[in-house]
Amino acid sequence: MEKVLAGHGAAPGGGHREARESREILEHARKQAAEFFGVEDPEKIVFTSGGTESVQSAIRGWGEGAGEGTLYVSEMEHPAVEAAVRRLERGGFKVVRIPVDAEGRLQWKNVKSGEGPGLVCVHLAHHDLGIVPDLNQAAVFAKSARAQLFVDATFGAGWVSLPAGLDGVDLLAISGHRLGAPKGSGFLFIRSGFSWRGQVEGGRQENDQRAGTENLAAIAGLGVALAEWIKSGEKFRKTAGEAQRMLLEGIRKKVSHAKLHGPEPGAERSPAHLGISFAGLEAEALALVLDRVGVAARGGSGCVTREMKIPPAMKAIGAKPEEARSLILFTLGAATPTPDVSLAANFISEAVKRLASSLPTSF
Amino acid sequence: MEKVLAGHGAAPGGGHREARESREILEHARKQAAEFFGVEDPEKIVFTSGGTESVQSAIRGWGEGAGEGTLYVSEMEHPAVEAAVRRLERGGFKVVRIPVDAEGRLQWKNVKSGEGPGLVCVHLAHHDLGIVPDLNQAAVFAKSARAQLFVDATFGAGWVSLPAGLDGVDLLAISGHRLGAPKGSGFLFIRSGFSWRGQVEGGRQENDQRAGTENLAAIAGLGVALAEWIKSGEKFRKTAGEAQRMLLEGIRKKVSHAKLHGPEPGAERSPAHLGISFAGLEAEALALVLDRVGVAARGGSGCVTREMKIPPAMKAIGAKPEEARSLILFTLGAATPTPDVSLAANFISEAVKRLASSLPTSF
Repeated sequence: MEKVLAGHGAAPGGGHREARESREILEHARKQAAEFFGVEDPEKIVFTSGGTESVQSAIRGWGEGAGEGTLYVSEMEHPAVEAAVRRLERGGFKVVRIPVDAEGRLQWKNVKSGEGPGLVCVHLAHHDLGIVPDLNQAAVFAKSARAQLFVDATFGAGWVSLPAGLDGVDLLAISGHRLGAPKGSGFLFIRSGFSWRGQVEGGRQENDQRAGTENLAAIAGLGVALAEWIKSGEKFRKTAGEAQRMLLEGIRKKVSHAKLHGPEPGAERSPAHLGISFAGLEAEALALVLDRVGVAARGGSGCVTREMKIPPAMKAIGAKPEEARSLILFTLGAATPTPDVSLAANFISEAVKRLASSLPTSF
Repeated sequence: MEKVLAGHGAAPGGGHREARESREILEHARKQAAEFFGVEDPEKIVFTSGGTESVQSAIRGWGEGAGEGTLYVSEMEHPAVEAAVRRLERGGFKVVRIPVDAEGRLQWKNVKSGEGPGLVCVHLAHHDLGIVPDLNQAAVFAKSARAQLFVDATFGAGWVSLPAGLDGVDLLAISGHRLGAPKGSGFLFIRSGFSWRGQVEGGRQENDQRAGTENLAAIAGLGVALAEWIKSGEKFRKTAGEAQRMLLEGIRKKVSHAKLHGPEPGAERSPAHLGISFAGLEAEALALVLDRVGVAARGGSGCVTREMKIPPAMKAIGAKPEEARSLILFTLGAATPTPDVSLAANFISEAVKRLASSLPTSF
């Protein structure tokens, strides 16, 4: 990225040497993105400004292409998904809600096909519950409903495996910074064979699918990050998974009422995530206490904190209000060192005890 | 930017220390952006992923807020503007086209007010013609039509002065990389007092006006670039203006049929831009020859090259087809050294002569 920022200022669209050099960097990153998924045609990759834009463009672009139809979606999707779905609903699209069980598993059995073109919207891993739904079930339903399948992979990519070549997936959204790439990077995979319309219009960048001068440094950084995942993804997943189990066990050992939401660590859960409630406490207060001792955790939902409402996912799975109010999200990294995790578990347990007993919270 | 990329990975939305540090960087850049315009309230600044998103969000956000009404716009605006206007037109909005004269000056005299809410769309400086329209005339018309005024400042900001505090301007779009900030940065100024709806929805970033994890490094870089303009803008404009005159005179001296499009250098033209046609040549061929000798210029319009169509601005001002086909855009920088400009003028003249006489074009 430093090399690109310092030495490759030309937009990739021009004909001169500087532009051609920029274009090479751009297309190299596109190949890395295709390779990350085992997708043959790099032209199916469209770079965006991040996960939110990727998600919004995927759904709204499908809606504009289809003109009418039915969206299949749970009530616990990320606000970027939910906002796009509601926007289409206001424009006349039907919305069929997919029920979920107490762990957040999507329940396809009684979902009925709607009218017109369809789009099935699922997450690869859930941002609050960590759950990894069965993509195959979603693909089977999409096929039976003659619908396209959109996968919001902004929270799961890298950590969770996807079918080779994205078989069965029509649209997929990626957030770069969740893969260790810089903020402001992301992309969209768009399979051909159905109608989709670009949502950012203007210049003719990105094969006419996303206008705007390409953010070359961020895209180059994203390409490098993806190459790292291709090379070391297995190690990243193992490291995070071990830290995840250690943190969970450490907390459980000392705080008997700590409750994990979403499935137990394993194939059904992203190794990079824990969502734990401490009934009786307020999540924001606990997060503040943790902050003082150097544990950066997030109180409440990852994406709807300011209103202090109950996270939609906690409502959807039928969590008790005192659980929803005390949900803390912990993110494990590809390189979180074991001693730090062990220390964090102690700090968290201590903070919970002190808050619960109204002891002084600085220690 | 390097400091932010290496040391400030936290999203600014959280409550922990790392998030608060990120938030400070974000809000510092917002203050720098407000200061750049002499705008008092930094909350009126919304960071985006670049100029195209800024433009598209400005116009479409106004349209969604208004629900119906009239857009006033010339036929030579940037594709990002034109695409947003056409999108609203398909949705039922009326479009009134502002005529232009042979230099690209907007002609307000006979423009009639339309029905409902209105949005006047003008550029601060034109991307192909370099012309700086009289913003005051646009503001007067907007007032008389009870319309909001949108200024596409993606090509003019920094180089061209704006009214203090953006007086009379309701919406304004900025592209960061045209101000020396990184690609992938930009912002939107939104005055309060009318209805505008955010176009990228999801999380609650940017005061609920633009969802998506903030691109902190790019935003920090944009803040620094704006601070540089506040400090040294006068010098940048003077340097570019001198280079502009030198390049124009150098080309004119040696190529008698070289024709400047848009106004002569001066108050009516951005100091950073020259659009010159060489009737009888194809712009792309000339750009390729120039490339071989190290002059990176763009053949055709800055933003619609791939189709090799006539740039809309050249059509709008009534340029001859052979002029439109041979238009070359030269961009002057804040630090283009004088000897380089003098050399470029010689190379350009030589390339034009060789292409015209079918002499070998490598020299």
